[in-house]
Amino acid sequence: MLTDDVPLTDHHCHGVDVGTLDRPGFERLLGEGARGDFDSAIGLAVRRWCAPALDLPAHVGPDVYLRHRAQLGASEAAARLLRATGVNRWFLDTGIGGSTADFAALAEGEVHEVVRLEEVAAQVIAQVGAVSGVYDRIETELRARAETAVGFKTIVAYRCGLDFPPQDHPPTSFAPEHRLTDPHVLGWLVGLGARIGAELGLPLQFHTGFGDPDLRLRHSDPLLLTDFLRRTAGTGLSVMLLHCWPFHRHAAYLAHLFDHVHVDLGLTIPYVGQRAGAVLAETLELVPFRALCYSSDGYGLPELHYLGAVLWRRGLGTLMDEWIAAGAITTADAEDLVTAIAHRNAERAYRAPLERTARKSDRPVG
Amino acid sequence: MLTDDVPLTDHHCHGVDVGTLDRPGFERLLGEGARGDFDSAIGLAVRRWCAPALDLPAHVGPDVYLRHRAQLGASEAAARLLRATGVNRWFLDTGIGGSTADFAALAEGEVHEVVRLEEVAAQVIAQVGAVSGVYDRIETELRARAETAVGFKTIVAYRCGLDFPPQDHPPTSFAPEHRLTDPHVLGWLVGLGARIGAELGLPLQFHTGFGDPDLRLRHSDPLLLTDFLRRTAGTGLSVMLLHCWPFHRHAAYLAHLFDHVHVDLGLTIPYVGQRAGAVLAETLELVPFRALCYSSDGYGLPELHYLGAVLWRRGLGTLMDEWIAAGAITTADAEDLVTAIAHRNAERAYRAPLERTARKSDRPVG
Amino acid sequence: MLTDDVPLTDHHCHGVDVGTLDRPGFERLLGEGARGDFDSAIGLAVRRWCAPALDLPAHVGPDVYLRHRAQLGASEAAARLLRATGVNRWFLDTGIGGSTADFAALAEGEVHEVVRLEEVAAQVIAQVGAVSGVYDRIETELRARAETAVGFKTIVAYRCGLDFPPQDHPPTSFAPEHRLTDPHVLGWLVGLGARIGAELGLPLQFHTGFGDPDLRLRHSDPLLLTDFLRRTAGTGLSVMLLHCWPFHRHAAYLAHLFDHVHVDLGLTIPYVGQRAGAVLAETLELVPFRALCYSSDGYGLPELHYLGAVLWRRGLGTLMDEWIAAGAITTADAEDLVTAIAHRNAERAYRAPLERTARKSDRPVG
Repeated sequence: MLTDDVPLTDHHCHGVDVGTLDRPGFERLLGEGARGDFDSAIGLAVRRWCAPALDLPAHVGPDVYLRHRAQLGASEAAARLLRATGVNRWFLDTGIGGSTADFAALAEGEVHEVVRLEEVAAQVIAQVGAVSGVYDRIETELRARAETAVGFKTIVAYRCGLDFPPQDHPPTSFAPEHRLTDPHVLGWLVGLGARIGAELGLPLQFHTGFGDPDLRLRHSDPLLLTDFLRRTAGTGLSVMLLHCWPFHRHAAYLAHLFDHVHVDLGLTIPYVGQRAGAVLAETLELVPFRALCYSSDGYGLPELHYLGAVLWRRGLGTLMDEWIAAGAITTADAEDLVTAIAHRNAERAYRAPLERTARKSDRPVG
Repeated sequence: MLTDDVPLTDHHCHGVDVGTLDRPGFERLLGEGARGDFDSAIGLAVRRWCAPALDLPAHVGPDVYLRHRAQLGASEAAARLLRATGVNRWFLDTGIGGSTADFAALAEGEVHEVVRLEEVAAQVIAQVGAVSGVYDRIETELRARAETAVGFKTIVAYRCGLDFPPQDHPPTSFAPEHRLTDPHVLGWLVGLGARIGAELGLPLQFHTGFGDPDLRLRHSDPLLLTDFLRRTAGTGLSVMLLHCWPFHRHAAYLAHLFDHVHVDLGLTIPYVGQRAGAVLAETLELVPFRALCYSSDGYGLPELHYLGAVLWRRGLGTLMDEWIAAGAITTADAEDLVTAIAHRNAERAYRAPLERTARKSDRPVG
Repeated sequence: MLTDDVPLTDHHCHGVDVGTLDRPGFERLLGEGARGDFDSAIGLAVRRWCAPALDLPAHVGPDVYLRHRAQLGASEAAARLLRATGVNRWFLDTGIGGSTADFAALAEGEVHEVVRLEEVAAQVIAQVGAVSGVYDRIETELRARAETAVGFKTIVAYRCGLDFPPQDHPPTSFAPEHRLTDPHVLGWLVGLGARIGAELGLPLQFHTGFGDPDLRLRHSDPLLLTDFLRRTAGTGLSVMLLHCWPFHRHAAYLAHLFDHVHVDLGLTIPYVGQRAGAVLAETLELVPFRALCYSSDGYGLPELHYLGAVLWRRGLGTLMDEWIAAGAITTADAEDLVTAIAHRNAERAYRAPLERTARKSDRPVG
């Protein structure tokens, strides 16, 4: 397939758990709710694709798989799965634990950091309290963290929803809370991230669509960002809409409308298993090919990072084969489309921080 | 196909009309609006599948079909169609007429009752009026009806929408109305059904998605139940989201998130005809395989009960064949998935009332 | 294919730009946002289908295509593309420029006018100002324009959204504005169009779904019209829901529910390219076959008019081939379905104005 060997930039993922997981522990990480389940599209995909990557026959039962995985050791299994992805550049959202150094020890390729706005704000508030000037401290800290990051991430979708109020200035009074939920503070924080991102060339990633149980799915429809996107068009900011399912057509429309909007399917791809190609096809109805990126949103289980890659390769590869067979696209154009989604679009969107990072790593230390 | 012979539990359907129907009468029952139409996906399916079940060639014209059906007699046609479904357990929502005894006289297999909350409440109010204590009488009556029922059903989606207010206690004042529409009364009634259901092990069925013309589709999106589902998680209640189209992906997400949520496609399957497999595939993206159930929502026309079964068998069977051919699932796992959806998931969700009923029918009468 | 030679009624499109377009100018018209892009589903379709229609090899690059198009001359290219559509009846929305005479000079077949309510109202207001009686003047002008038109069109979706307030009488005070945005004025105007349309047999077209950047997609969901459709059922008005994506299933449901509602996919078909058949299949799940119409919504680029036709023929033709092969429909029934969508449904919906127009053109002038 055209997609077999193309290197990937996984522009949004998380660290992995290298403790030994029993079946409940593994299944807990195999779902976005209280627990996942092997008897599901993603569970079938683990058995079909991850088992052979760990030298087991395809389709082995869950218990055999987990026993073998424990025998290998979680770190060894993680290293094998991560290296089998064909990803050579990882952008790690470190907002829920996991360091780039830990990840780099397991995976091949460059590892860069994506800084989560809400995490930084909560840390600052925890350190300094509700003093006057806390907002300035948050900005200072975000700018400091941006020095070595490739992007910002916001989970405002989980907190108050994507219909957060526009807020150019911080509220004059608020009761700082460790876990930010005040829509006005969040609106200000997202606006701040957008301004710094525009200034420094750091894309701003939004969680949209399905995810954790504390999310209300109706409030994570990316269409709720329409006014925000109108305001940020032309400012230099790149916006990355992550995951998107079941609103991936909505996200594709936004990318069609606004030049600075990019879309990925993130955790959708591993979760929908055999249906990855179908969801990609729906997204490709309207998304400009320059605006679709790859990510796995892998978190906890390296199986998710691996499934993201293997199901994306299979799904998009099969779709391209069909389009080529139908005469809808030439092989050369399909190769170009694949390359764009695999890494070129991300390279362009994250060009500024990637170049800054490259210059830094060339400099002698100190 | 794997699905050819698996027995089905139709966990939500209605009685059938055994009067002779002319074409307008038949087409009126072939749609959810003012009238249905043979020139539609479901109309094609009637001619393709129901005609041979009544010994006519496939694809005969509507008038030939209806003439032959009248010659057979509506009862004979109903008996043939219902017996050809392969359903051996029917759960009948009796809230809009039709008795389990009448149905059992036509169909093979067990017939159990599903009690519609709004119907019971309206009956009590009609009997006793707006006296103080009417709410207690409603609870008493629901408990009495629950004795011989396998589940509750609510059509709050039609009345005020699935965004009904949570209401632990009945409103202190209300003007009782025969056809309940007060959101607070409905919110209390649904909450009452949920509490009794949790206590007795009776699942609570919600109409969601498309249906009667007095429904506003935007208010029947199952995502509007998110907070209700959060409140009822862990109480022992099973919630069954019925029909769901065009929000079946939303329903699948809720079942992914909450262990106590089940989903079916109900009347979607007969209505979308040749597209049944495609809608099933979209649902299977995220729904845990333990959470998907079968129902036909057949009402009035036994053709609907039959099409539900035959199109489900064809649609899911074809999908499983494709997944097996693609190596995405083993034949054994596909058989297990089919069995789960066909009857095992419903048997588990309705275990308590089914066992109670079985014990009762073993007891000598009197 | 069954669809190869069926003549089409394009019941909603616009005029074409016959100036010479450079690549930025062409791409600007190839998208609904600030600009479109050859690297997209529609861009692939232009290269695949429009190139051969202009005697170039399929899949030539954008620059080769545009150079050849310029050599031919924009008018010649337009004439070739429009004549290759197989459309023999065009209904032109003249609300954003372009005249039926100009179009008729390029295309074969009849050309009729669709009058845009907002454009007429804005013209009257610009002429007479905020005088008392301006509403009567608008009605008078709409009735005059209706004499030679086949339908009305409203873009209320762009202005305040499809959740406009019902408004039987004009507001007693308003500040007339050239570009109407007051929801009450718009609500009155749409109601007026509905009344005149019912009286004269002129269908009322609604933009729904995706489109221009000044639209908020959430406010163009056709479900927001549910109450309007309930009010206008039985009045004699035909309502045409245009485009609909990504809410085409919602539109199909409304047509299932209400006899007077028709649906098309309009600009969806050219935009989604190779996915046209998939979107048609989703629509056919619930739409009665008597309620689906054809349109291209072509605007500016004759490529859009051509792609609408060719992708509709390919998409629906392939789908019918699949359904016939699966035994779900007979060839005769598929032919009938194709004819209905291609032109018969539109002929029935627009019968009164088409007959009026035909009588007029038979009369000697003067």
